[in-house]
Amino acid sequence: MDEIRGKLAGRALGPGEKLPSIRRFAAVMGVSPSTVVEAYDRLAAEGTIVSRPGSGFYVSRSAPSLAIAEVEPRRDMAVDPLWVSRQSLDAGTDVLKLGCGWLPSGWMPNAAIRRAARGLAKADDVVLADYGNTRGSLPLRRLLARQFAAEGLDLRPSQLLLTSSGTQAIDLICRLLLRPGDRVLVDDPCYFNFQALLRVHQVRIVGVPFTPTGPDPSLFSEALAAHRPRLYITNSALHNPTGATLSPQTAHRILNAAAAHDLTIVEDDIFADLEPEPSPRLAALDGLSRVIRIGSFSKTLSASVRCGYVAARSDWIEALVDLQVATSFGGPSPVAAELVYATLSDGSYRKHLDALRRRLSKARREAAGKLERLGIRPWLMPRGGFYLWCELPEGLDAAELARAALREKLVLAPGDVFSPSRSAGGFMRFNVAQMSDPRAIALLSRAMDGADR
Amino acid sequence: MDEIRGKLAGRALGPGEKLPSIRRFAAVMGVSPSTVVEAYDRLAAEGTIVSRPGSGFYVSRSAPSLAIAEVEPRRDMAVDPLWVSRQSLDAGTDVLKLGCGWLPSGWMPNAAIRRAARGLAKADDVVLADYGNTRGSLPLRRLLARQFAAEGLDLRPSQLLLTSSGTQAIDLICRLLLRPGDRVLVDDPCYFNFQALLRVHQVRIVGVPFTPTGPDPSLFSEALAAHRPRLYITNSALHNPTGATLSPQTAHRILNAAAAHDLTIVEDDIFADLEPEPSPRLAALDGLSRVIRIGSFSKTLSASVRCGYVAARSDWIEALVDLQVATSFGGPSPVAAELVYATLSDGSYRKHLDALRRRLSKARREAAGKLERLGIRPWLMPRGGFYLWCELPEGLDAAELARAALREKLVLAPGDVFSPSRSAGGFMRFNVAQMSDPRAIALLSRAMDGADR
Repeated sequence: MDEIRGKLAGRALGPGEKLPSIRRFAAVMGVSPSTVVEAYDRLAAEGTIVSRPGSGFYVSRSAPSLAIAEVEPRRDMAVDPLWVSRQSLDAGTDVLKLGCGWLPSGWMPNAAIRRAARGLAKADDVVLADYGNTRGSLPLRRLLARQFAAEGLDLRPSQLLLTSSGTQAIDLICRLLLRPGDRVLVDDPCYFNFQALLRVHQVRIVGVPFTPTGPDPSLFSEALAAHRPRLYITNSALHNPTGATLSPQTAHRILNAAAAHDLTIVEDDIFADLEPEPSPRLAALDGLSRVIRIGSFSKTLSASVRCGYVAARSDWIEALVDLQVATSFGGPSPVAAELVYATLSDGSYRKHLDALRRRLSKARREAAGKLERLGIRPWLMPRGGFYLWCELPEGLDAAELARAALREKLVLAPGDVFSPSRSAGGFMRFNVAQMSDPRAIALLSRAMDGADR
Repeated sequence: MDEIRGKLAGRALGPGEKLPSIRRFAAVMGVSPSTVVEAYDRLAAEGTIVSRPGSGFYVSRSAPSLAIAEVEPRRDMAVDPLWVSRQSLDAGTDVLKLGCGWLPSGWMPNAAIRRAARGLAKADDVVLADYGNTRGSLPLRRLLARQFAAEGLDLRPSQLLLTSSGTQAIDLICRLLLRPGDRVLVDDPCYFNFQALLRVHQVRIVGVPFTPTGPDPSLFSEALAAHRPRLYITNSALHNPTGATLSPQTAHRILNAAAAHDLTIVEDDIFADLEPEPSPRLAALDGLSRVIRIGSFSKTLSASVRCGYVAARSDWIEALVDLQVATSFGGPSPVAAELVYATLSDGSYRKHLDALRRRLSKARREAAGKLERLGIRPWLMPRGGFYLWCELPEGLDAAELARAALREKLVLAPGDVFSPSRSAGGFMRFNVAQMSDPRAIALLSRAMDGADR
C-alpha cells in the first residue's frame, strides 16, 4: 500500500492509469500474490483505486491528495457555554485539559473494556448486526434496575430507556416536555452544557443560586412562584461544577416546592458511581413520579463507548421511545450496550471504582494544595468526584485567564460558562485528575502571569 | 451465582441478611475461594448483594424480584409512520419481519466485525476511553472523503461530521435549518421515518409524486412555487420504498428548480453500497453547495455499531458540530467509528458487498416470483437493494393486511405509512432478504385470507 501511495504522491501513477498486475507487482516486491491482493483490496476499499473485473485495478479518476490537513479548534471563539467542550474535545494531544469534564484515559477500566471487546468478538450475529429493541439492551436495563432497587428506587426494566448519551437523554426529555418560550430552572452555577442544550430548545433559562447543600430552598420556591418553570435540571450528587452534595433537608424542601407548582425535575446522576457513600436522591425520594433520573457511563467506564439512560414514568418512557425512534432510529448501539453490560458485570468493576475513588481523593487533596499556593482556593472540598470549584485571586478574570491559558496549550473552564447570571467571573473549575500532570502548575502559573489583570 | 439466586428466590436468604463467608461457601460448593469472590463481586455489581468492608456480603435491602416481565410491542397502535419501526424493532425472535428495513443478521459481514472487535481489544487507551473529537474519527472521515472523491465528490475531511446514525444526521440538519411551520418536500411515497422525524420538528410535509426515475420534475417545480419549502429530503439511489433510481435528466431538473427557489436538499445515501453500479447523485452534481449528503453503515455493515455522517458546506458543518455537542455531547462513539473504520478498510469488505449484491439480486427475483403467485406485483424491478414496492390484489387494504399479519407473527410495511397523501393503501413494501425465509409465503397467504376485504 505504501509503495502504491508513493507512486501516486510522486506522480509515477496518475488518475485512471492501470496498476501493475497482481502477479507482476508481487514479483517486483518479493511478496506473495495474496499479499498484493489484500493491499489492492484495501486501497480499493478506501477509494484510492478501483477494480474493473476482468481487466485489473486502476487509479481512481479523482484520487485525492494524500496529505489532508485537519482543522484545529478555533481560538477566536466566544467564551460561551460551548467553549469548554469545543476547546477540550478538539484539543491536540499536546494540550493539557485542566478544565475538561473527564478522567485521563489511563484512569479508566480499560482492561475490563478490552475483555468486553474480546467477548464481543464472540457474540451472536444478532448482537453484532441488528438494531436491537427500542428501549435498548434488556440485560443492561435489568442490571440497572437491580442497582437502582439497591438504592431504594424500584422500577421495571421497561421504565428504562437506553440512549446514546446522558446528554441525548436530557435532549429527548426536553423535546417531550418543553415548548419554545418555556422557562427552565437550573442551578447557578450549573453544568455549562445544560445551558447550551436549553438554548437549542429556545427556552428561557432561570438560575437559582447554589449553596454547598444544593439550591437555595427559599430562592428556589420564589423562582417557582415568579417564573412557573416547566422543568428543573440538576445534579444531586457531586454537583457539576461545585462538587457539592444535596442535603436531605434541601431535597425534601425542593420536592415539596416542585409538587406545589407541578414542576418536573431531571436529576442527572452521571457522577453517582464516584461517591464514597450514597447521598440523598430526588428520584428515590419521589419514586419517579415527577422526577426523571438520567445518567451515563462516560465518567467511570468509558466516554468512547457511548451509552446513557432515562428512568421515568412508563407513559413518559413510551413517548420518549417514539421520539428516539423518530430522531435517531432505534435505541443506542447494541454493541455499545453489550460492552457496557460486560464491563459493569465484570467482577473487577467494583474494585476499579474503589481504587478510583481513593485515587481521586488523593488527587483532590494534592490539587487543592498546589492551587492554594497560587492563591486559588476551593469553594468547598467535595466528598468525591473530580471537580474543584475554585475562587481565583482578587482581580483575576477567569475568561481572561482561560484565553491566556490557550497560548500555553492549557484548556481551562472559566466560571462564567457555568453561570446563567454570569456572576462567576472570579471562579474556575479544575479537574483534579488532569491536575496530576506534572506540567500543570507551571503552565497555570505562566498563564496567570500572561493574563491581563 | 445460581445458588445464591436460588436461595433468594426460595426466601432462604432475605433482604439485609448476611451471605455465607467466602471460605465457608467455597467449601460447601466445592469450588475455590476465588470463584466465590468472583460470583459475589458479580452479584454486588448488579446490586443483588452489597459488600460491607471488614464485615462481609449482605443481601441488598431491596433485592428485586428475579423474574421481571418485559413489555411486548403493543398491537393496538395506530398504523402510522412509527408503526413499522416499533413493531419490527420490538418483535420477538419468533416474528418474521417481511416489512423491516434491514438485512437478516446472517447476511452482514460479521466475520469482519469480529476481527474489528478483536482489534479493538488492542486499541490505545485513548480510543477505548475518551470522547474523541467533535467531528468524529479522522481516519474514518479520511476514508469516506477518499471514497467520495472516487465518486466525483471532492471534499475535505473537515466537511464531514460523524453522527450516531443517519437519522440523527437528518435530525441535526432539521434543527439547523428548519423552524416550526416551515414546509418540507418529500417523495410520495418516501421512507416513513422522514415523516415521523419531520413531525417532531413541527413542519408541514409536502409530498411530490414519485416516478420510476425520481420525483416528477414538473410537479416538483410546481410544489416549489406553491409551497416555498425550505428543504427536500430524498434517496437518489435505490429509493426507499420503491427501489427506483434517479435519472440524470431528473437530477438535473431537480437541481435547477432547487437553485431557482433557493431550496436545500438532503440526499440520504444510505443504500449507496448496494448499487450494482453508480447512479447520478445530486451531491456530486451540485458539489455540496445546496445539497447535503448523509449516510450510515446500518444497511451494509452493521445496524448495531451505530454510525452515520453528514457531508456538507463547511459553515453548516461548523454549526452542526455545535448542535451535536449541545444535544449529544461530542460526536459518535469513537469505539463505533473504530469498528466501522476497521471493517471498511478490511480487504474482505468489497468482496462481501459483491457477494451481497449477487445474493440480493437472486433473492429479489425469487421474491417477485413468489409474490406474483399471490397476485402481488412489483411496481418496478429495482437495480439493487432489498426492497420490492408491490401492488396488492384489487380490494385488499395494506393496513388491514398488516394488522391481520401481526396475528400470524408477521410484520409487514403497509403502503400508507410511506405516503404523505395516504394514497398508497393498495401497496406494500417487502424486504426480499427477509422473504427468503421458507415460512414467508405460507404466513403471508394466511394473513391475506384473514384480512377483511
